[in-house]
Amino acid sequence: MEKKYTHTTPADIENTSMRIITEELRSMGITLPEETAPVVKRVIHATADFEYANTLSFTPGAMEKILSCLTSGELSLVTDTNMALSGISKASLEKLGIPAFCYMADPEIASLAKEQGTTRAYCAMGKALFDSKKGPVGLIVGNAPTALIRISEEIRNGNPPAFVIGVPVGFVNVVESKEELYELCLSMGIPAIIARGRKGGSTVAAAIANACLYMATRSLDPRARGWD
Amino acid sequence: MEKKYTHTTPADIENTSMRIITEELRSMGITLPEETAPVVKRVIHATADFEYANTLSFTPGAMEKILSCLTSGELSLVTDTNMALSGISKASLEKLGIPAFCYMADPEIASLAKEQGTTRAYCAMGKALFDSKKGPVGLIVGNAPTALIRISEEIRNGNPPAFVIGVPVGFVNVVESKEELYELCLSMGIPAIIARGRKGGSTVAAAIANACLYMATRSLDPRARGWD
Repeated sequence: MEKKYTHTTPADIENTSMRIITEELRSMGITLPEETAPVVKRVIHATADFEYANTLSFTPGAMEKILSCLTSGELSLVTDTNMALSGISKASLEKLGIPAFCYMADPEIASLAKEQGTTRAYCAMGKALFDSKKGPVGLIVGNAPTALIRISEEIRNGNPPAFVIGVPVGFVNVVESKEELYELCLSMGIPAIIARGRKGGSTVAAAIANACLYMATRSLDPRARGWD
Repeated sequence: MEKKYTHTTPADIENTSMRIITEELRSMGITLPEETAPVVKRVIHATADFEYANTLSFTPGAMEKILSCLTSGELSLVTDTNMALSGISKASLEKLGIPAFCYMADPEIASLAKEQGTTRAYCAMGKALFDSKKGPVGLIVGNAPTALIRISEEIRNGNPPAFVIGVPVGFVNVVESKEELYELCLSMGIPAIIARGRKGGSTVAAAIANACLYMATRSLDPRARGWD
């Protein structure tokens, strides 16, 4: 590799990036709470978009509760897209014994959505929360506002998730569905991380999930590198 | 679903989103060239970030040349991450007869990267362009600047790709590697779509690839819906 590119190993690139992000946040006068900083910084790392320092919202105590779920040995995770699932660290999931699923490509979900004239994401979250009767389920939504709409409905129906990472992106129903879910989680004591506004996406969802997984891994083994 | 959410089918949500994006671009005084507008709008759709209207750069004639590659029946695609691969429309790839690969999880790539003290993305792009001797390869990079560095090196070594979508995200080597590759593609006549600056990501890479694939599909069958 040519000499003008000085940082070339993954560890070096990661550490330098995090240092730049920390410095730029400081120069912007933004101080992040210690508890949530690793999540916010990883999202900025994944997007190069400092707006997330202002838009990422955590219900009170969300990080502690989410980390407790991740280290419980009982949790399963469900994502709204295979893309988000693909971005989540398999090594961390394995270390923590967390199975992770996405139902978007299931033929039964596709036919159910067609039948009901709704989205696959709406039906997939219904399935995820039906399964939550068997054990706690953490939900990770990076794409579909209709997934959040279904989660809010199921919370009202008495089928709450263990936690929600709700960061869909877009122009239709996105802002409203995030606000509704955030308020509902706040009032019901369900830990939630929501990206207010239009922005979000599968990379944002995966970055938040990975930041939480790395923190959970480190809480079990302080020598763990914390990312991979 | 509750009545306050009025747009609930995928087609309805997509059409309404695209109308909002078109209107907001107009109100911002931005006129996109007809040729590249579908790509830029799909990226804004995937990110809710209008900055891409200014940062996405296309080498002259890039769209026409990329669409010609996609409909040639000879192309294969290689992405830098499984996440980007996961976001690319399998239905469109199948319609166009394009095989798509990612070598990031290959054990041989991992051991080669470790041996050379570099990234898996750097080695994976080397493999992709070595394979290009067997047939034209389009490269899609949403994450790793080291992937772009290797592509530039291989272009200089006489192993050019059929085209490059180069939109990695980040803080180290990202801006420089994009500028170097863009200039090189410009001077060598290699079609390229690059997101100038720090921003980008796997969702951006997949959105660009999908916009191109939908345009290619429609050019073969004007009745095709153009997205899925």
